[in-house]
Amino acid sequence: MSETVTTESSSQWLSREELDAARERLPILYVDAVPVRVDETGAVTAFGLLLRVTGHGDISRALVSGRVLYAERVRSALLRHLEKDLGPLALPKLGAHPAPFTVAEYFPVPGVTPFHDPRQHAVSLAYVVPVEGDCHPQQDALELTWVTPAEAADPGLQAEMAGGQGSLLRQALGACGF
Amino acid sequence: MSETVTTESSSQWLSREELDAARERLPILYVDAVPVRVDETGAVTAFGLLLRVTGHGDISRALVSGRVLYAERVRSALLRHLEKDLGPLALPKLGAHPAPFTVAEYFPVPGVTPFHDPRQHAVSLAYVVPVEGDCHPQQDALELTWVTPAEAADPGLQAEMAGGQGSLLRQALGACGF
Amino acid sequence: MSETVTTESSSQWLSREELDAARERLPILYVDAVPVRVDETGAVTAFGLLLRVTGHGDISRALVSGRVLYAERVRSALLRHLEKDLGPLALPKLGAHPAPFTVAEYFPVPGVTPFHDPRQHAVSLAYVVPVEGDCHPQQDALELTWVTPAEAADPGLQAEMAGGQGSLLRQALGACGF
Amino acid sequence: MSETVTTESSSQWLSREELDAARERLPILYVDAVPVRVDETGAVTAFGLLLRVTGHGDISRALVSGRVLYAERVRSALLRHLEKDLGPLALPKLGAHPAPFTVAEYFPVPGVTPFHDPRQHAVSLAYVVPVEGDCHPQQDALELTWVTPAEAADPGLQAEMAGGQGSLLRQALGACGF
Repeated sequence: MSETVTTESSSQWLSREELDAARERLPILYVDAVPVRVDETGAVTAFGLLLRVTGHGDISRALVSGRVLYAERVRSALLRHLEKDLGPLALPKLGAHPAPFTVAEYFPVPGVTPFHDPRQHAVSLAYVVPVEGDCHPQQDALELTWVTPAEAADPGLQAEMAGGQGSLLRQALGACGF
Repeated sequence: MSETVTTESSSQWLSREELDAARERLPILYVDAVPVRVDETGAVTAFGLLLRVTGHGDISRALVSGRVLYAERVRSALLRHLEKDLGPLALPKLGAHPAPFTVAEYFPVPGVTPFHDPRQHAVSLAYVVPVEGDCHPQQDALELTWVTPAEAADPGLQAEMAGGQGSLLRQALGACGF
Repeated sequence: MSETVTTESSSQWLSREELDAARERLPILYVDAVPVRVDETGAVTAFGLLLRVTGHGDISRALVSGRVLYAERVRSALLRHLEKDLGPLALPKLGAHPAPFTVAEYFPVPGVTPFHDPRQHAVSLAYVVPVEGDCHPQQDALELTWVTPAEAADPGLQAEMAGGQGSLLRQALGACGF
Repeated sequence: MSETVTTESSSQWLSREELDAARERLPILYVDAVPVRVDETGAVTAFGLLLRVTGHGDISRALVSGRVLYAERVRSALLRHLEKDLGPLALPKLGAHPAPFTVAEYFPVPGVTPFHDPRQHAVSLAYVVPVEGDCHPQQDALELTWVTPAEAADPGLQAEMAGGQGSLLRQALGACGF
């Protein structure tokens, strides 16, 4: 659930003040992407995790995540955020189905769902996305690490992830057959 | 994609003016529900279609549809709109999985997707929902008709539905094995 | 992946010898069901686990599981095995969608997939099934325990389950949003 | 649901007589694949239909379809049948999720489900598979035609398909958002 002012200011259709006002009144539509490496049969061999600086200056493992803009397709939002975080050579391959593997409801108050975002009520469509190219973290993403399914299943690693994204990673593992 | 001013005014957290402003700036999160009757094995035997008065005074077949409010769970929004349209005795049974069977992207400009809503860019999570009780259409829903899967598959019937909801009904049929 | 000779002998369409021969030559079609309790919004509140005597006389936690017979619908097989294990008053409610939440491939050799069945190559369609009634374990199922989602997520509990069904439970948790 | 004796005889683990015997006793596990072309956002632009000679010498539109062998992974079976029908340069890209978009139950008696196979009770896991390379129909597949989503939705075209595969194509369209 990362979003930096500089990244989106030119494309976000709203001033920062207007967005802040909307965030107190409406659920905000997000997408989450779990980047994966797959073998020649399409089975997942690794999950990609970002190392990201949070709004508070902490460092945390995270998934690719961001807002859907006005008049933007969900597919376009996914590709935009994947490119923003993984760089322009990542070659993400979105699946043919529009249905997400899950819907993550981030609430401003913790404990309502596994997901929490102090800034807003965000509802996020979550997708597993195979990436075939070279990934070079961009912007506020410091590093991308590929972990095996077994490593991704580690409760310790999942607990390191902010906002409940450990739960999202766990659901992605399940949706991929692990 | 129906919403009447009177229905939601007390619960919508925004003035009409504020909502109109947000609708020009942000995608608005919706839910669509396809009410179904099922047999004792859970297989769908009938699809429920509303007869609804549209904003322009036309009469049109429609699905249950409406906005997700700030701080409202997706499940709660589904139940609220099902009760609003089918009455309090419908006994809808939401499934255990949070993932919708599809995501419908309603654009203010026709032709971008199969879905169109002149008022806004709405992104709708669509669910098939078995209802077990008595349905009594409420508010701007004039009538509820149960049609067989074969009748629901009729291109003529689907073409009667506004905003591209015929496509959503078709996708619901497919997701139910027809 | 339980199957006792006595249980199915009258209904299995094959002699034990014929079934054994087929098991060395063909993948055998199974269904797995994860019984759940849901709240009034359809969200899962508890997962049901059987305590079962395995073929070797061990006691192990297990899901509802069994073979699909010749000319039997997948839905009928699910209901038959749910009734066999949970009793006739369990009132299972199969969902409207025919697609399983995952496919578990049980191989006779361990390590090919997370799933293992020394007797056969079984391919199992796995479903989450809300049950609304009273459950009384039958046959080789000794006991049914309802555990919370947090308890079901415990790696220790999952490791107790034979044949890789801990992985299936984990995938069911993910599909239900945990 | 095509299978020619010559194609599989070397790899099928069973003699023709043994397979025929099993087919009268057990549901046989199949896979169906709907080949698609996708654009750079992963959205489907065309559906691939084979022109196939049936067992009776008729010519019929069909999907890629075939049996899963003993000890064969579902992914391997999909790739094997895609290569058999589309040639070795088709470059099919299986998705990351093991769950099929639907399960097609082909019964020997027509009318039980939309699917029918006079030879057997087959249960088929159906997947949409983007193919990126050059397709050259092989074996009993005479030709591959790419049709637009609108053409694929034509009831006339769907009615031409044998064994109920028109219903499977319709479900694939729905799962892809059409």
